Amino acid sequence: MPTTTTIWLMLASALCWAQPPGDSHPAVSNVWGSQYPRIHSDLRVSFRIQAPQAQKVQVRLGGTHDMTRAEDGTWSVTIPPQIPGFHYYSLVVDGVAVNDPGSETYFGSSRQSSGIEIPEKGVDYYEVKNVPHGEVRQFRYFSQVTGAWRRAFVYTPPDYDTNLKARYPVLLLQHGGGEDERGWVVQGRTDIILDNLIAEKQAVPMIVVIDNSYALKPGESPAAMRPPSGPPGSFRIVISPTFGEVVVKDLLPALDKRYRTRAGREHRAIAGLSMGAAFAMQIGLGNLDRFSHFGSFSGTVMRDLDVKTSYGGVLNDGAAFNKKCRLLFIAAGTAEQSRLDAARHARAELDKVGVKHVAFDSPGTDHEWLTWRRSLREFAVRLFRNQQ
Amino acid sequence: MPTTTTIWLMLASALCWAQPPGDSHPAVSNVWGSQYPRIHSDLRVSFRIQAPQAQKVQVRLGGTHDMTRAEDGTWSVTIPPQIPGFHYYSLVVDGVAVNDPGSETYFGSSRQSSGIEIPEKGVDYYEVKNVPHGEVRQFRYFSQVTGAWRRAFVYTPPDYDTNLKARYPVLLLQHGGGEDERGWVVQGRTDIILDNLIAEKQAVPMIVVIDNSYALKPGESPAAMRPPSGPPGSFRIVISPTFGEVVVKDLLPALDKRYRTRAGREHRAIAGLSMGAAFAMQIGLGNLDRFSHFGSFSGTVMRDLDVKTSYGGVLNDGAAFNKKCRLLFIAAGTAEQSRLDAARHARAELDKVGVKHVAFDSPGTDHEWLTWRRSLREFAVRLFRNQQ
Repeated sequence: MPTTTTIWLMLASALCWAQPPGDSHPAVSNVWGSQYPRIHSDLRVSFRIQAPQAQKVQVRLGGTHDMTRAEDGTWSVTIPPQIPGFHYYSLVVDGVAVNDPGSETYFGSSRQSSGIEIPEKGVDYYEVKNVPHGEVRQFRYFSQVTGAWRRAFVYTPPDYDTNLKARYPVLLLQHGGGEDERGWVVQGRTDIILDNLIAEKQAVPMIVVIDNSYALKPGESPAAMRPPSGPPGSFRIVISPTFGEVVVKDLLPALDKRYRTRAGREHRAIAGLSMGAAFAMQIGLGNLDRFSHFGSFSGTVMRDLDVKTSYGGVLNDGAAFNKKCRLLFIAAGTAEQSRLDAARHARAELDKVGVKHVAFDSPGTDHEWLTWRRSLREFAVRLFRNQQ
Repeated sequence: MPTTTTIWLMLASALCWAQPPGDSHPAVSNVWGSQYPRIHSDLRVSFRIQAPQAQKVQVRLGGTHDMTRAEDGTWSVTIPPQIPGFHYYSLVVDGVAVNDPGSETYFGSSRQSSGIEIPEKGVDYYEVKNVPHGEVRQFRYFSQVTGAWRRAFVYTPPDYDTNLKARYPVLLLQHGGGEDERGWVVQGRTDIILDNLIAEKQAVPMIVVIDNSYALKPGESPAAMRPPSGPPGSFRIVISPTFGEVVVKDLLPALDKRYRTRAGREHRAIAGLSMGAAFAMQIGLGNLDRFSHFGSFSGTVMRDLDVKTSYGGVLNDGAAFNKKCRLLFIAAGTAEQSRLDAARHARAELDKVGVKHVAFDSPGTDHEWLTWRRSLREFAVRLFRNQQ
């Protein structure tokens, strides 16, 4: 039976839930029913956690912010306005970065991390709208290259199960370092973006395939993909050729067998973000007989582009390459200076030999998912145009 | 440039990765490449985390276990042999329950929690095997009842996209309290279990629909589904009628429109675990014109079953009910005494009036996912038999 004190605390707590501070609302990235974190109309964010025995609690989001302890052991802080879009973040309890129980987790930096969605005023292309919806399907296929079953996600457009004679072009989308095949589905909202673009006839109906770039052959050491001395949470960018082999030998044939794809290079695109941009360029430009549309979103790899030598020299004869390339798209956020510099370097290199390309600079965004949602939209609307 | 000390630490750390203790191996529930937690051949489990500034670190799995700090700030512990199957667990850093960065997270207890898969010797019905695989599809549908778009997961059997004239019976599977529609997909491994059963012709090809029982009408308070005074991480079992309305008015029509279902009560089943068992019985037995197969897995609700009054008295005339019921299946784990008692009470009640039912007691398992994987298997092999 509750004591008087307990009842008082319950009442206080209930009032606290009932009257959250000011004009704020729970983030959409919260777990069901969680009142914190809360986002204010000016995009400040309030965090709260129960940690009566902790010595120090912080929030790590756009810097590290000390939280303040109340007498009941609740720690809280309101941090300055955040940039719209999706951000990974952590709570730090006595020096250990942990997830916030109030938020969903998202796979990034090789761990399940808390994430928060900061609303972007007047923008709804990545919101679920009242339009026909496609599906995201979990697709298991066996890889002869790795000797194991793999899982990819496949977006099928809204009319896939009704327009049974239609065949569709295929876009492969690669995640970043320390992420996996869940990234473009959950953080990227690929299906929602495509549903909306297709409904507005801004993009043609297409199949989108989201696989995991981390792949090992039997006996191949995981050290090929992560530093042997690294603790959990570390990762490194290693563009192993194994995944490219998986794509060519296993994934594309399995897709063409299972789904109503349009076969042939004109109907295939590949793009990726950050580390995924390096995979996309390596696999795409290394297999011009299989791909004709290429996208680099925030690719550090662009820094080293040399039209004479990169990718077996396929870029060196601009006119010949232009005949084979339907789209070469190079994007970066204006707030991620090193990737923006890399993109600008690559564009200048391509201009030297007359390789046509499309540039997209995402205004005000950093090395983050909003840059990549925007890049996907700008890329997708240019894909598979003027095809029979 | 690394100092000598740094290099020494890197080497020590590399050796540590290269030579993990004894006969242990990383859990399959670890994030990619993570070496901890590790499982020993006798099912002891070793945990490790870096927390140099923490005062006390524990593991909460089958009890609470203190971890020991090494000089470098690494905490570790090996805990006694664990029961096979999937378990949620936490690390506790200075009193705060957090996730283990080495493990995947799973939505349970209304939060993203670490989880660990303890291997079950000689058992492979929930492992990915070399058989034809179905798909799990993310299905968005609009609910008139809640006034919002909802997401469900739909398992389609392996031949769904090749056997285009076939129609399939439908099983609805409900999650437990504090879980959601991801539970039966990720923790439950529904698609793998069904793929294997269908390949062995132990189950008929069927569509499985996994939705979220938490549903609110516009203006309905979330307090209907969770305690207003509860902190994040708390939940309560409230069998709101809203989800039942969603099923009847929105979900079933949307499914019959989108997928090649067999319509009609003979071809529909509903089951759930724990809180989901209560939803399954309420919705199933409350809509005998729509369902004919019913499953309660670890349902506390069985404790209160009264054949005279429960579910509008539909059980009271045993002979009449038996004509309408193709399967009434009541399961519990032998290590979850209160639910086992509840199941036994319900079976005795049903016997009073001659209602036919099937009992399944999962040997040695508690209120956990292994009980429910087994229950699903035992339920699925009995579904939709002797149908045209």
